[in-house]
Amino acid sequence: MCELLGMSANTPTDLCFSFTGLTQRGGRTGPHIDGWGVVFYDGRGVRVFRDPLPSATSPVARLVQDYPIKSEVAVCHIRQANVGNVCLVNTHPFVRELWGRYWVFAHNGQVPDSVFKPGGFQPVGTTDSEALFCDLLNRARATLTPESTALDWARFLAPIAADHARKGVFNCLLSNGEWLFSHCSTKLASITRRAPFGAAHLRDAEVSIRFDAVTTPHDVVTIIATEPLTRDECWDCYAPGEWRMWQRGVVVTAGGQ
Amino acid sequence: MCELLGMSANTPTDLCFSFTGLTQRGGRTGPHIDGWGVVFYDGRGVRVFRDPLPSATSPVARLVQDYPIKSEVAVCHIRQANVGNVCLVNTHPFVRELWGRYWVFAHNGQVPDSVFKPGGFQPVGTTDSEALFCDLLNRARATLTPESTALDWARFLAPIAADHARKGVFNCLLSNGEWLFSHCSTKLASITRRAPFGAAHLRDAEVSIRFDAVTTPHDVVTIIATEPLTRDECWDCYAPGEWRMWQRGVVVTAGGQ
Repeated sequence: MCELLGMSANTPTDLCFSFTGLTQRGGRTGPHIDGWGVVFYDGRGVRVFRDPLPSATSPVARLVQDYPIKSEVAVCHIRQANVGNVCLVNTHPFVRELWGRYWVFAHNGQVPDSVFKPGGFQPVGTTDSEALFCDLLNRARATLTPESTALDWARFLAPIAADHARKGVFNCLLSNGEWLFSHCSTKLASITRRAPFGAAHLRDAEVSIRFDAVTTPHDVVTIIATEPLTRDECWDCYAPGEWRMWQRGVVVTAGGQ
Repeated sequence: MCELLGMSANTPTDLCFSFTGLTQRGGRTGPHIDGWGVVFYDGRGVRVFRDPLPSATSPVARLVQDYPIKSEVAVCHIRQANVGNVCLVNTHPFVRELWGRYWVFAHNGQVPDSVFKPGGFQPVGTTDSEALFCDLLNRARATLTPESTALDWARFLAPIAADHARKGVFNCLLSNGEWLFSHCSTKLASITRRAPFGAAHLRDAEVSIRFDAVTTPHDVVTIIATEPLTRDECWDCYAPGEWRMWQRGVVVTAGGQ
C-alpha cells in the first residue's frame, strides 16, 4: 500500500509541517520506502519533486521539508510498491497536460485486470495507477470539454471511481490546480483548519506548530491524508465509497456515502 | 535571451560541475534571472526541477548543484524573459508525454508571429517556446510513429528548425531520453570528454574538476551549452543553421552547416 497527502487552501500555504509528518512513514515510522513524489501548483504551473529513494532519507525530501513552497493545491504520495518496479518512472504523482492545463494524479491501491481502450494518453511506466490515470484522461477528453466545471468533473469521476473500487482498491487524489477530487475506497481522512487556529503535534515526529503564528483570520486550509498526521486534532474520516470535491479549502460537492 | 545546457552520455553521469557554472549566469555572472529549470532522465522517467527565482540564489538550484543526480540525458535552461511573464508556468524545460515517453524541450530565442494549427498538445503558459514545442509534437504525432528512429526524427526536425530560424531565433534542445537533438540558430557549442580525461576550470566560478577522478576509461560525455562553460578546454562551436543529433555522447547524424 501507499499513502496519500493532499492540500486545498484559499491562500498560498506551505506544506512543510504535513510533509514532514508524511515522509517519516517512508522508512522511519512506516514501510513506504519505494519512492515518493509531490506536486505543488503555482498558478497554472507545477513544481514536481520525485525521488525513488525512501522519503525519510531522501535529500530532495529534506529540501521540500525545509523550503516553504506556497501553493493552493498540492498532491503528495509515498510508495510501497505492489505493481511496477521501484524506479523513478513509477513514482506518483503522475502529470499530464490536457486542454492547456496540467493534471495531477496519485493513487493508493490496486485495480487488477483492468482493460483500457487505447487513447492519446499512454503510461510511461508499468504501474496500474498510471494506466488508470491515462484512461481517465482519455475518457475525459471524449466526454467533457475545457469549460467543464468542478461539478461536471465530479459527476464524471464519481461513477468511474466507484467502478474501480468495486474491482480493487481505489483511494485517489486528482487535481487540475483549481479543484482537488478525492475518493476513498478503504481509507482517507481530512481536516479543515480555519480561525481560531490552534496548535498541533505530528504523530510521526517530535514536531509541533502553532497555526495562528503562520496564518491570517481569513485562511482556510484543508489537508487530506490516508491516516491522520497529527495526534491532537479531530480528523474527519471518509466512509468507504465516499468522495469529496475540494476547492479553496472547502467541499463544493460530495457523495457516495 | 536565455542560456541552454544539455548532456548526452554513454553512462549515467552527474551534471553538478556544468550546472554550477551555468547557474552563476542566473544573477551572478549573467543576467538570466527570470527562472531556471532542469530535467534529468532516469531510464524512461524524468526528474524535473524548476524555480522562477534566479538560479544563482535559488535553494532548489543549490540542491541540484550539490546532489549528484546521475543521468544519460539532461536538459537545462536559465531564462531572461522576453515573451511571457516571469512565473513558474513559463520556465523551461517543458515536458509532455507522447507514445508512452516523456519529451523535453528547451529553447533560446524568439520566433514571433508564429501561427499554429490546433492540436492535442496545448501550451499551459504564455511563452512562444512552449507553443513551438506543442506544435512540434502535434506535427510529430501526425507524421512519425512510436517506432521512428533518431534518424527519422532528425529528418523531421531539421527543416522545422530551419524554418523557425528563418523567422526568428531558434536555438533548442529536444530529447526523448534516448537521443538529444540540438539546433543552433545563433549560438551553441559542445564539448565531448573521453579518455584520457583531464582537468577543467569553470569560467563563471572558482570551481575546478579532475575528470579522471570521477570517470572510467569507457565514459563518453558530451556537454552542449550556449556559451562554453570552462576556460581551459576547446569547445566546438556550432555554425548558425547547424544541427547535431546526439546519442550516448556522440553525434549520430548532423547537418545544416
